[in-house]
Amino acid sequence: MSQSTIKDSDVDIVIGVVHADITSFMNEWKAMFSRYHIIIVKDPDLKEELEIPEGFDLDVYTKSDIDQVVGRSAAALFSGYSCRYFGYLMSRKKYIVSIDDDCLPAKDKDGFLVDALAEHIHNLSTPATPFFFNTLYDPYRKGADFVRGYPFSLRSGVNCALSCGLWLNLADYDAPTQALKPELRNSRYVDAVLTVPARTMMPVSGINIAFDREVVGPALLPGLRLAAEGKVRWETMEDIWCGMCVKVACDHLGAGVKTGLPYVWRKERGNPVESLRKEWEGVKLMEDVVPFFQSLTLPQTATTAEDCVSEMAAAVKTQLGSVNPLFLRASDSMSEWVKLWKTVGTKNLPKN
Amino acid sequence: MSQSTIKDSDVDIVIGVVHADITSFMNEWKAMFSRYHIIIVKDPDLKEELEIPEGFDLDVYTKSDIDQVVGRSAAALFSGYSCRYFGYLMSRKKYIVSIDDDCLPAKDKDGFLVDALAEHIHNLSTPATPFFFNTLYDPYRKGADFVRGYPFSLRSGVNCALSCGLWLNLADYDAPTQALKPELRNSRYVDAVLTVPARTMMPVSGINIAFDREVVGPALLPGLRLAAEGKVRWETMEDIWCGMCVKVACDHLGAGVKTGLPYVWRKERGNPVESLRKEWEGVKLMEDVVPFFQSLTLPQTATTAEDCVSEMAAAVKTQLGSVNPLFLRASDSMSEWVKLWKTVGTKNLPKN
Repeated sequence: MSQSTIKDSDVDIVIGVVHADITSFMNEWKAMFSRYHIIIVKDPDLKEELEIPEGFDLDVYTKSDIDQVVGRSAAALFSGYSCRYFGYLMSRKKYIVSIDDDCLPAKDKDGFLVDALAEHIHNLSTPATPFFFNTLYDPYRKGADFVRGYPFSLRSGVNCALSCGLWLNLADYDAPTQALKPELRNSRYVDAVLTVPARTMMPVSGINIAFDREVVGPALLPGLRLAAEGKVRWETMEDIWCGMCVKVACDHLGAGVKTGLPYVWRKERGNPVESLRKEWEGVKLMEDVVPFFQSLTLPQTATTAEDCVSEMAAAVKTQLGSVNPLFLRASDSMSEWVKLWKTVGTKNLPKN
Repeated sequence: MSQSTIKDSDVDIVIGVVHADITSFMNEWKAMFSRYHIIIVKDPDLKEELEIPEGFDLDVYTKSDIDQVVGRSAAALFSGYSCRYFGYLMSRKKYIVSIDDDCLPAKDKDGFLVDALAEHIHNLSTPATPFFFNTLYDPYRKGADFVRGYPFSLRSGVNCALSCGLWLNLADYDAPTQALKPELRNSRYVDAVLTVPARTMMPVSGINIAFDREVVGPALLPGLRLAAEGKVRWETMEDIWCGMCVKVACDHLGAGVKTGLPYVWRKERGNPVESLRKEWEGVKLMEDVVPFFQSLTLPQTATTAEDCVSEMAAAVKTQLGSVNPLFLRASDSMSEWVKLWKTVGTKNLPKN
């Protein structure tokens, strides 16, 4: 796999908006966002009018768009943080970058603003190396290479389909951790990108990610919804579940997942102690979720991300359905999503 | 697995010496080395007298010691860089730190000298987490924790049996890479430690490592010796082979491997262009070595590192023996090593 060039016009930025006033968010990102087309999806539960500053090339989707495109019953898939998945569905670009609306540009260790868009795009345009671990991190970064002992036959790598960025200040801890350590903030800027090895599962956070929509778009999906899902990250599991699906799909399809840079600066939001009651549900589910995905193998007949998701939905129903009704609903959501992707996600459907 | 406290008296520093004058090496490390007992093993091929400064608590082993302890025929295992393995055999401590004699203390990103010993010991005294990937790196480092979605049942982790440090300045590239990019130096200080996931193979370099001798000592072994093995790292594969063995053993025994910090500063040595002819042999071997170790599973009856090595030696003979006679010799060396470990490595054998 050789390095590819990604044009600005190949990229959509998708922002799921759960807080009506995104003026300061958009303005802080302006220098980096303004080169790209932006899709804004308003959480259908949000009543207030959006406040969006001028000066961007963007489409805004709201509840009425969602209802119209996918129908009233499927629209339930896209509430809360999951509204962003509607943007993934509507995009027609090869690459998507998606950042939560409580994140601002971070500064690197020398104090310079990080261009998270450029760093995600670099991750996606250079190969990933999931089949053998390179101790000097991403061999495709400037100033790096493969260490002694790395087989030459594996050095060309594979297509990188997912780039997972990290967070300074408020890191993505769960509510119990943050409640136990209220002062805990992430201040360590780790100047590294690495490929997550094949068959290694990880908790992908949806806060700051980018992906190749053509290769794995259908595997970034609204699946698991907690009964008491809230509007702060630690009251959700949707992105963690989605991350398991996309990692299994990438492993099966021979695509790579990178993690590390870029960092974003995450602002304070929510009260972890208040969230504890809700979050325990999600925390407990992971004890079943992780072993399930770790042992999941997909049949050779699954050759696309859609195929992978259909297979995973069936396995969720069979293997996890009896554990908790939430998993049955997750399976149904995944099946519904694949149908939507086939009818809506791949059609040449311009915004009205 | 809980965090353990490692006393200075639990640690041996083992230095394999391939260059007679280690005065400046020892003096540069003095502040960090002088708290520990040191085992120096002189490469039996080295004719000159060792030059070692005063002021250390050390034992020195030379060719005559090796011949006397293991006999003339087994002594061949311990030439060149592999002389350090004799030190592993003679140590009676729970932990060993081993650093090549062309490395000096590195400076961290703030310009402070890195105490590589303290950082290795921290890695070994805190749990490793090989069964699920933590995107915020080592959760046991100060200021870090497990990210949202990390199963609580996996957070206690497992015993860390191997700590692999990295290199600033001259990184551990192979001769072809360094010959192709003669200016390539590593200047990126990545402030991170991470657990290499279970079943992920990696090129362990022997330059800067530490390990739990009681748990995996027998798996750190002199196995593969190139026909034209030289006295610079890129003319060897012994440590890469050893790393594969110890990673397979750790995975099988449920122990962890960390990589990242500490860095050491690696001085210039050797001419990569001159080494190219020798090194190609090793480079080519990796194309067979990596798939072999990646697919190797050990039987449940193997419950100790010695058992693991015996099983691996047998598998090397059966599966790789016909590919290249070097592998047959590697298998024999591994079997011989296990015998030595059982007779010499576990006996209460004081230095005369």
